[in-house]
Amino acid sequence: MILDTVKKIGEKVKIDGFVHVVRAHGKIAFADIIDRSGVLQVVGGTEIADLRPQYSVEVEGIVNARPEKMINDKIETGKVELSAEKVTVLAKSDEMPFDMGAEELNLELPTLLDYRSLTLRHPKIKAIFKVQAVIIDAFRQALIKKDFIEFQAPSIISSVPEGGAEVFKVDYFGHDVYLSQSPQLYKSLLVGAFERVFSVNQIFRAEPSVTTRHLTEATSLDAEFGFINSWGEVQEMEEYVIRYIFSEVEKKCAGELALYNATLPKLSTKIPVIKLREAQEIVFKRIGRDCRNEKDLAPEDEREICKWALEEKGSDLIFVSHFVTEKKPFYVYPDPADPTYAFSVDLLGRGVEWSSGGQRLNDYKTILEHVREWGLKEKDVELYLQSFRYGVPPLGGFALGAERMTMHILGLKNIREASLFPRDMERVDFRFSR
Amino acid sequence: MILDTVKKIGEKVKIDGFVHVVRAHGKIAFADIIDRSGVLQVVGGTEIADLRPQYSVEVEGIVNARPEKMINDKIETGKVELSAEKVTVLAKSDEMPFDMGAEELNLELPTLLDYRSLTLRHPKIKAIFKVQAVIIDAFRQALIKKDFIEFQAPSIISSVPEGGAEVFKVDYFGHDVYLSQSPQLYKSLLVGAFERVFSVNQIFRAEPSVTTRHLTEATSLDAEFGFINSWGEVQEMEEYVIRYIFSEVEKKCAGELALYNATLPKLSTKIPVIKLREAQEIVFKRIGRDCRNEKDLAPEDEREICKWALEEKGSDLIFVSHFVTEKKPFYVYPDPADPTYAFSVDLLGRGVEWSSGGQRLNDYKTILEHVREWGLKEKDVELYLQSFRYGVPPLGGFALGAERMTMHILGLKNIREASLFPRDMERVDFRFSR
Repeated sequence: MILDTVKKIGEKVKIDGFVHVVRAHGKIAFADIIDRSGVLQVVGGTEIADLRPQYSVEVEGIVNARPEKMINDKIETGKVELSAEKVTVLAKSDEMPFDMGAEELNLELPTLLDYRSLTLRHPKIKAIFKVQAVIIDAFRQALIKKDFIEFQAPSIISSVPEGGAEVFKVDYFGHDVYLSQSPQLYKSLLVGAFERVFSVNQIFRAEPSVTTRHLTEATSLDAEFGFINSWGEVQEMEEYVIRYIFSEVEKKCAGELALYNATLPKLSTKIPVIKLREAQEIVFKRIGRDCRNEKDLAPEDEREICKWALEEKGSDLIFVSHFVTEKKPFYVYPDPADPTYAFSVDLLGRGVEWSSGGQRLNDYKTILEHVREWGLKEKDVELYLQSFRYGVPPLGGFALGAERMTMHILGLKNIREASLFPRDMERVDFRFSR
Repeated sequence: MILDTVKKIGEKVKIDGFVHVVRAHGKIAFADIIDRSGVLQVVGGTEIADLRPQYSVEVEGIVNARPEKMINDKIETGKVELSAEKVTVLAKSDEMPFDMGAEELNLELPTLLDYRSLTLRHPKIKAIFKVQAVIIDAFRQALIKKDFIEFQAPSIISSVPEGGAEVFKVDYFGHDVYLSQSPQLYKSLLVGAFERVFSVNQIFRAEPSVTTRHLTEATSLDAEFGFINSWGEVQEMEEYVIRYIFSEVEKKCAGELALYNATLPKLSTKIPVIKLREAQEIVFKRIGRDCRNEKDLAPEDEREICKWALEEKGSDLIFVSHFVTEKKPFYVYPDPADPTYAFSVDLLGRGVEWSSGGQRLNDYKTILEHVREWGLKEKDVELYLQSFRYGVPPLGGFALGAERMTMHILGLKNIREASLFPRDMERVDFRFSR
């Protein structure tokens, strides 16, 4: 590996990698070669000068210490270089349509996506998906430590209990089936078997609009667990998971964060928790916007509450609880003290919603009542009802969007940047209207 | 947790769990309570006798040592019992439609699936998914140790390069898109960016038949990596992953394997590797079936080769390489020594195929030739071609089916048993024709 050359001055080595940039100065030429461990400067003659960006190569040579004034403190291999003795081209590349050697690609989003297989090779773009992989693995490891068991959520579902507006329909041997918008019902019913479950799964939303915040296919990080005493335990478990993820990202992605001048969201000793109505009161007091009778938070409210949390509580994240029951799905648990509001709890971060969650109903008769009140058909939630009819303990859970977290940790402008192969209304890899 | 009671004799404890079985003997009653850590016998009076299977309960009481003749050596908590002082019912259950206390459910498959949310609660069924979770996590951890990076494979794809026979079509804002049968093209093109990638993802096959071996939605464990020197490196990486998975399952699932009287597949020092034509010769010599000119292995050939491998090589697993090039997809790498055969390698285990993999073409011009020879449209593999046009090193990889591995490790009869919510032609949770 390239990183190992640091300890091999004077030794003969063989490295494999991608040519990043080539600089020819008369008879002497330099190439930066990248592998998964780092980048290395290779020095040679015409065999180096003839290389082109994105070639895959194997280089044999001697590791030398760089002359004092050639040392580059910014990279881990900045004190060494490889004096090439034999260069083997493993794969050639056409001339690149843009300069991959630049620190920033500076491409418009459509170009960034039209050349997705190439733009993903840029170190700064690759960094996004290193961070995302760490987020996802940390989510899993945090929950495994708490005895949660992983399950594979199905993507194909037979009915859409909440109505079919934003759902994709699949032709299934002549039957209409759909792509799952959330593993919510599955993860809840599994609590009756496994107590504590989580999944990392693709979810699908037929959003008929093109925004900076929505993908038609996204990665959802879902957790659900039983034998809770209150909705507060759900919020606490989520806080534990978030802290675990941040600490892993901090530990494993220092270089990637630095590329974006990004710092992890600031956390106070305890992430603040306020009720919807309290949040609206705060917004009204701060900016005079009277949303105090609204049933949900508007984007500008979310931004203002996050500002307040940072200024007053020293936290980039804040939990908002007790949303309006009738605006939530049928499985929501109304607060017995005032059933207008529910034991639901969303996490806001840096001005936007990061997750939603809460306690769910577990009493079978109450669930049946809700199914009717919400105007659903029992048949459309049959497997769910089956589970609760035969006993599921008090439960709750939450879902985090992997792309959304990645986006807001790194400060990306558009959620498409945080998806390897983003799908939206107009594009599946390429635009439909080409 | 229930398991902790073993060390708490004489102490007062509070446990949460599911009632498994209740045995009333006059004024004294026993209930087995299950939580995620184990099972515990609880003793009490009417408050215990009134419990019913599948109730969720909280029990407070004193942990006592069981009388000598009541000790149960089969369970970890067999030397203790809980003398109930306070029993709180957290959720009631209707009377179960079958005896969940039996060691085996002994249900026909349709019943097993019609009551999926309940049958998943049976300890022996739960065990299947504990093993599956360990297999999947071990796959990931094995590859992370080798510097592979996880990626999220898209499920929605815009074209079906290999023809649309067994693919599901999705209505996507008026455009036809499809559900991915494999992340193959994505994982290969990502090698140009990340060198080594893996994914755990749902794949979809519109199999128009109902067999014991096929699901319409399954979990695929995919790996792909670059800078290989030969197809043998792919086989060796897969062998490493398989051994890692087996060792994790052995370590973490002893109890689950015991429930099925299952032993992990036997491995010799090195999993044997033979060529297709050698395999066919072996079948001919052993049972006289002359398949030596066939272009693929029939199920009976696979069974016979596995028998041979176990008898002659002491291995339940065997790699078969050098399949017929024209029967493989366009990206297959023909052996230059005889291009009729390709650098492909399948893993067979206990009589069936566990995985397929091999080296892929990486030279852009050769890929273009294959695309034409295979009768594909360049537009249908545009993103893939884009990547190879700009250089991808020699690469290969493999894909393992999570349900199939689970099935064959535990000796299940039908792959539906190894899927939490199996989908087939006739069923998505429930049968269509009810």
